Amino acid sequence: MTGSVIYERLALIGLGLIGASIALAARRQGLVKNIVGYTRTAETRAIAQSLKIADSYPASAAEAAQGADLVVLATPVGSFRALAQEIAPQLKKGATLTDVGSVKSTVIKDVGPSVPAGVHRVPGHPIAGTEHSGPAAGFATLFEGRWCILTPPAEADEAAVARLESFWRALGSSVERMDAKHHDMVLAITSHVPHLIAYNIVSTADHLAQVTSSEVIKYSAGGFRDFTRIAASDPVMWRDVFLNNKDAVLEMLGRFNEDLSLLQRAIRYGDGNTLEEVFTRTRAIRRSIIDAGQETAEPDFGRHAKDPLSASKK
Amino acid sequence: MTGSVIYERLALIGLGLIGASIALAARRQGLVKNIVGYTRTAETRAIAQSLKIADSYPASAAEAAQGADLVVLATPVGSFRALAQEIAPQLKKGATLTDVGSVKSTVIKDVGPSVPAGVHRVPGHPIAGTEHSGPAAGFATLFEGRWCILTPPAEADEAAVARLESFWRALGSSVERMDAKHHDMVLAITSHVPHLIAYNIVSTADHLAQVTSSEVIKYSAGGFRDFTRIAASDPVMWRDVFLNNKDAVLEMLGRFNEDLSLLQRAIRYGDGNTLEEVFTRTRAIRRSIIDAGQETAEPDFGRHAKDPLSASKK
Repeated sequence: MTGSVIYERLALIGLGLIGASIALAARRQGLVKNIVGYTRTAETRAIAQSLKIADSYPASAAEAAQGADLVVLATPVGSFRALAQEIAPQLKKGATLTDVGSVKSTVIKDVGPSVPAGVHRVPGHPIAGTEHSGPAAGFATLFEGRWCILTPPAEADEAAVARLESFWRALGSSVERMDAKHHDMVLAITSHVPHLIAYNIVSTADHLAQVTSSEVIKYSAGGFRDFTRIAASDPVMWRDVFLNNKDAVLEMLGRFNEDLSLLQRAIRYGDGNTLEEVFTRTRAIRRSIIDAGQETAEPDFGRHAKDPLSASKK
Repeated sequence: MTGSVIYERLALIGLGLIGASIALAARRQGLVKNIVGYTRTAETRAIAQSLKIADSYPASAAEAAQGADLVVLATPVGSFRALAQEIAPQLKKGATLTDVGSVKSTVIKDVGPSVPAGVHRVPGHPIAGTEHSGPAAGFATLFEGRWCILTPPAEADEAAVARLESFWRALGSSVERMDAKHHDMVLAITSHVPHLIAYNIVSTADHLAQVTSSEVIKYSAGGFRDFTRIAASDPVMWRDVFLNNKDAVLEMLGRFNEDLSLLQRAIRYGDGNTLEEVFTRTRAIRRSIIDAGQETAEPDFGRHAKDPLSASKK
């Protein structure tokens, strides 16, 4: 099943899980004619080459961006400012510059000022991923049935935004437009704070003296292992997310802590009613997520048949 | 594949996910001759009957325990004290009374005093489960490849403990013996605190005004949905776990909070090194869990082919 070409030349700055998946999906759907891939290290480039992710691999991001119709920044968000400054002089008039960063307000501030007039700047964020990273983690169906959020500035060119929307739809996603600040608040609670908490509980377990690591590992089926999946996500990407979405994360974390204090107090004073009431309410939310098609009752979140790394590492 | 009979008559007090799974596995493996099942409500009894979980369904727990060689308490731990008092007069000499409660110290205090001389009291805890509950959630392979912890008191009869061990091994589990207090500490970090945190983040998300529920549900693929699975677990069972493992849970929660404060502070002051260091360390732990066979790299925790409810609710 191939669609019509949406962008002649696609430049991917970064060929990790997301960049590689965009390349594989765009080629499979026939959405681009040519894919240029830039990656910082020779090691990653060699992997990408062996997997035939892109058609060519220039030595610099600037060279990769040259003449491209769509440039996608797909590196950790902390690198965006320098990358934008580097590639700006090479961006061709009429090109669209987008990104896949998990934070949007700071990214707009970091990237916006470098973008020359005549280049369309449309920030984006596909809500899709796995705990694996690198080019080998990419797969063509990653975005199918997932949401992609675009946060175009008020002055954005409607035709350019609509074109990028059609690209994401052709990759299999549903697209929503949103204000950047609101995006950062939504993602703080649905993604950033959950990751922080998962990293934290795994770290707490790792520090215990009374309970050994081997006990934690042995008995992890009791609940702990559910947290370890997302706590295995890319450390640099997530460091940058937290540094760049500080305000929204601290706000949501404050609420999380208040709510946790309530449960902690209920445990201390033996208030079973409060515990049961909270635990009953949360059950309904999972049902809603399953009904919305963002989850299945299957414990694999419907990714079982899709993610090749998961399947091959059995 | 059937083994030899280990207990002639098995009495299950409670026919939820765990009780029903024990019945199905014990029958399949030929470990018992007769299964008596007691459940409090007529509704649950009707479901259990239609699924042929037990051979008979007496009207009271006392009647169910009468003449049984192995009696298993498989109800929420808060009900154990009253149940033990009720069934004690009916327990036959030489019988073993065990349970599957997720807490062991308080359970020993609650159940121990009622047990008459000549009855073997061997507390147990299979580290296995799904987020589903009730008799229809049970399946015969639930315990395969999982751990079961026994916490026999120092004066326990070795032959009785070994017999119960062989029963759990025949159900497919590996068995470990442990001190009850240590069990409660291990489970606080590997199971109880993770459940509390999962319940709490789902509850926090549910309370937000700036971010709507439908946004939380739509964008849950960003990490949030991983928490909703365990936050869908049985509310009454978990209420009782927290009320009965108060000290260990509050201790582990204190450590979790201290560690979270460190990350929170690193975010506030832009300390990327601390964040990256913690996030890198946690990655290794997941690898260890996978290597220990308590997880697969598949996001379904290896339960994909096993859990019939998950498979049927696709």
